[in-house]
Amino acid sequence: MSGRNIQVAVIGDSQADARQRDFAYSLGRMLAEMDCRVINGGGSGVMEAVSRGAFENNGTVAGILPSDTIDDAHPYCTVRLATGMGHARNAIIALSADIIIAVGGKAGTLTEMGFGWIYGKPVIAVTGFGGWSEELAGKKIDDRRKTPVYAADSLEKVRKILHDLINVSPV
Amino acid sequence: MSGRNIQVAVIGDSQADARQRDFAYSLGRMLAEMDCRVINGGGSGVMEAVSRGAFENNGTVAGILPSDTIDDAHPYCTVRLATGMGHARNAIIALSADIIIAVGGKAGTLTEMGFGWIYGKPVIAVTGFGGWSEELAGKKIDDRRKTPVYAADSLEKVRKILHDLINVSPV
Amino acid sequence: MSGRNIQVAVIGDSQADARQRDFAYSLGRMLAEMDCRVINGGGSGVMEAVSRGAFENNGTVAGILPSDTIDDAHPYCTVRLATGMGHARNAIIALSADIIIAVGGKAGTLTEMGFGWIYGKPVIAVTGFGGWSEELAGKKIDDRRKTPVYAADSLEKVRKILHDLINVSPV
Amino acid sequence: MSGRNIQVAVIGDSQADARQRDFAYSLGRMLAEMDCRVINGGGSGVMEAVSRGAFENNGTVAGILPSDTIDDAHPYCTVRLATGMGHARNAIIALSADIIIAVGGKAGTLTEMGFGWIYGKPVIAVTGFGGWSEELAGKKIDDRRKTPVYAADSLEKVRKILHDLINVSPV
Repeated sequence: MSGRNIQVAVIGDSQADARQRDFAYSLGRMLAEMDCRVINGGGSGVMEAVSRGAFENNGTVAGILPSDTIDDAHPYCTVRLATGMGHARNAIIALSADIIIAVGGKAGTLTEMGFGWIYGKPVIAVTGFGGWSEELAGKKIDDRRKTPVYAADSLEKVRKILHDLINVSPV
Repeated sequence: MSGRNIQVAVIGDSQADARQRDFAYSLGRMLAEMDCRVINGGGSGVMEAVSRGAFENNGTVAGILPSDTIDDAHPYCTVRLATGMGHARNAIIALSADIIIAVGGKAGTLTEMGFGWIYGKPVIAVTGFGGWSEELAGKKIDDRRKTPVYAADSLEKVRKILHDLINVSPV
Repeated sequence: MSGRNIQVAVIGDSQADARQRDFAYSLGRMLAEMDCRVINGGGSGVMEAVSRGAFENNGTVAGILPSDTIDDAHPYCTVRLATGMGHARNAIIALSADIIIAVGGKAGTLTEMGFGWIYGKPVIAVTGFGGWSEELAGKKIDDRRKTPVYAADSLEKVRKILHDLINVSPV
Repeated sequence: MSGRNIQVAVIGDSQADARQRDFAYSLGRMLAEMDCRVINGGGSGVMEAVSRGAFENNGTVAGILPSDTIDDAHPYCTVRLATGMGHARNAIIALSADIIIAVGGKAGTLTEMGFGWIYGKPVIAVTGFGGWSEELAGKKIDDRRKTPVYAADSLEKVRKILHDLINVSPV
């Protein structure tokens, strides 16, 4: 990757409770401190909280929106992309990430985890918030890959997995 | 729908065994007999078998390809579409269908079921072939919808669900 | 192309006058008689007229819509595809065509001619209706190709160019 | 736009001579100094030069790639997006921009100018480098808009047009 910054997509519920948003905020701050770019869907909930955590700590955030106007994004984006292609933009989020982290999540998150799996991206599923990240943590989505979805039950565990992934080729 | 034909997307493994292909072929024939258009991904396995079943029984089949050339399609397409957008075309398959039927399936099928769920399309999961259709049959993918994914353990059951769906508004 | 039907995209103004619609209708009928599939954007004007011409003469028509619902299509589609990606679907129309025919046309048609040019598709520009087909007829869009956009001032001329293209490799 | 940074897409030839690259570099530096985000296609030529100009002067650059891997981008991107959808990504570049600036350009640039026109974005065409920016400068692409494509024959003229656009609503 010739010196470029690692890009991490953080995905999850657009409607998130305070505990989930707090976790996402801390995750965003941690990613900024690790000098990772944060990729997200530009919406509310987990997307907004992780972006705020990064943005308020000098991180760089790209919001990749389903809509056709960049003014739909939450305010914590360094750059806003309007794909105008609805939920199909989930594939772009997966393709643009070196690593994907899911925090809870409904059907949209499920499609992003599925695309990440297909495209060979490491997927880290945070447990403790229910949803599809809880469901798929530690499992294989199908038999095309040997290593299952990573399970992380704490921010510290996410950090450790990230460090291991980033220091080992190819990512 | 003002007299137009119902469009049914059939999704599932690109690598399918003889039993799965036989089921898909019979399903394609049944859809042709019901005068439904068959939408599929243009690839091998379930996609090719269901299309062959429809195509050889005077049905109309649209293959929606991930690649950028229509010559990549299996030969049982009435019309071939080259999206050039990889697996993101799964969203187009879901959007273009009035009803989605899954027969087995890996991560790609999972994303199509997820998109179908998000877009409010009835999703029928055929059981008996493993994969994500087995896993999600009878379940809700998330809490946005009241009716779960339909479960069908036979062609006859699929036919019955289709008839009920087609004769009831809005589909 | 191993025996498959040639796919022809017909593009042009969504607001077309009677003369332009008449031409498009006759073009659609001719394409049906030549056993070509008609690809179009599913909208009004030239798109609807060419589709009607094919549809009413036993042709097969695929409408590739910008919107996220197939119920937005004109009624002369054999199959309807909802891309949900707005005008970016113009790239899919170009990719899905063996040959592109433009009849008049505004900025949307211009992007389709541009994509057709980039993707190496033969582009036939009908003259006599103004718009971008008039403007680009007989010209090269850039220097990547040797043969310019074909100019056709009559249905007979379109037929002749199509015959020459279809009987010569690679199309 | 509630305090967010203006996003400017700069489009043009992927194969550019030294004079064109010099202009693009200066344009990138100017955009960084104006605190605009630079959106570009992530490729070579004008895309790389304008990005380098911004990047080396503390600007923020988003490269929106046609390919499915972010490692295909030039090195002057703050954030890389892999759309995996080929030239159809040109629509995303146009949608993500508040203002579009074209410097020369072939068929790809033409489609971007066309999308920008359709989506109602101000398009500034730089003259003096040939290509489609030369061809369309001062003209209307079709009759849907009253103000033509802006023509700019110098960096100073671009700056003036940008200032006027940014200080006037809606952009």
